[in-house]
Amino acid sequence: MPTTPIPDDLRAMLSKPNPAVIATLNSSGQPITVATWYLLDGDRILVNMDNTRKRVEHMRNDGRVALTVLDDDWSTHVSVIGHVAEWKDDEALADIDRISTHYTGHRYPNRTDPRVSAWIEIDRWHGWGKAKQG
Amino acid sequence: MPTTPIPDDLRAMLSKPNPAVIATLNSSGQPITVATWYLLDGDRILVNMDNTRKRVEHMRNDGRVALTVLDDDWSTHVSVIGHVAEWKDDEALADIDRISTHYTGHRYPNRTDPRVSAWIEIDRWHGWGKAKQG
Repeated sequence: MPTTPIPDDLRAMLSKPNPAVIATLNSSGQPITVATWYLLDGDRILVNMDNTRKRVEHMRNDGRVALTVLDDDWSTHVSVIGHVAEWKDDEALADIDRISTHYTGHRYPNRTDPRVSAWIEIDRWHGWGKAKQG
Repeated sequence: MPTTPIPDDLRAMLSKPNPAVIATLNSSGQPITVATWYLLDGDRILVNMDNTRKRVEHMRNDGRVALTVLDDDWSTHVSVIGHVAEWKDDEALADIDRISTHYTGHRYPNRTDPRVSAWIEIDRWHGWGKAKQG
């Protein structure tokens, strides 16, 4: 797998509001996957979660994650391996609003439940289909 | 997460040629994700790989996997946690042909590279959106 920095065409693909699946590890090291919104934020990938999610606890315990992003034609996909480099309480819901607007054009509807942001640093990536690289 | 057996509406969703992402563990326990074809085969999930893929080695070393399947409207998705219960060399390419026909309507085009099948036993599953359960 090539290491970062990610080339421009991959950056363009990751910049779209594409479906994505993230894998985290539970406390016994079992992989867990779930569909997720994400946002390419500089060279890192921002994800945002309800603070009560078990996944937050898992990611705080072990920050190693993987993410696969599917393009419109899902034979094109990009996978990254990375780790959580930064956590921040999303107190004003500014991060989830950025992400929600990116995907839906609207602010995030739930204004009451506390949320948290995690920035994933990309350690390695690999592309298939039109996103094939390296 | 509910345990198996999976209910009929989830079975119906998993029976479609939907996009999916599988997470496996590398030798250091880091999760790795990749888009994959799959086939619901009885109560298990069949995946099939080029025998030379690093992923095969990873899954033979540690059979714990996770899989997220996205529906047409990808706000509907199902995630399963499971483990590889059976391996079989796909000598006549019968398994990849079943899977390829399911997704494309055609036999798998590459008739030369050896492939292997893995059947994943579902330990737990969870649905969101129209597939929300439990």
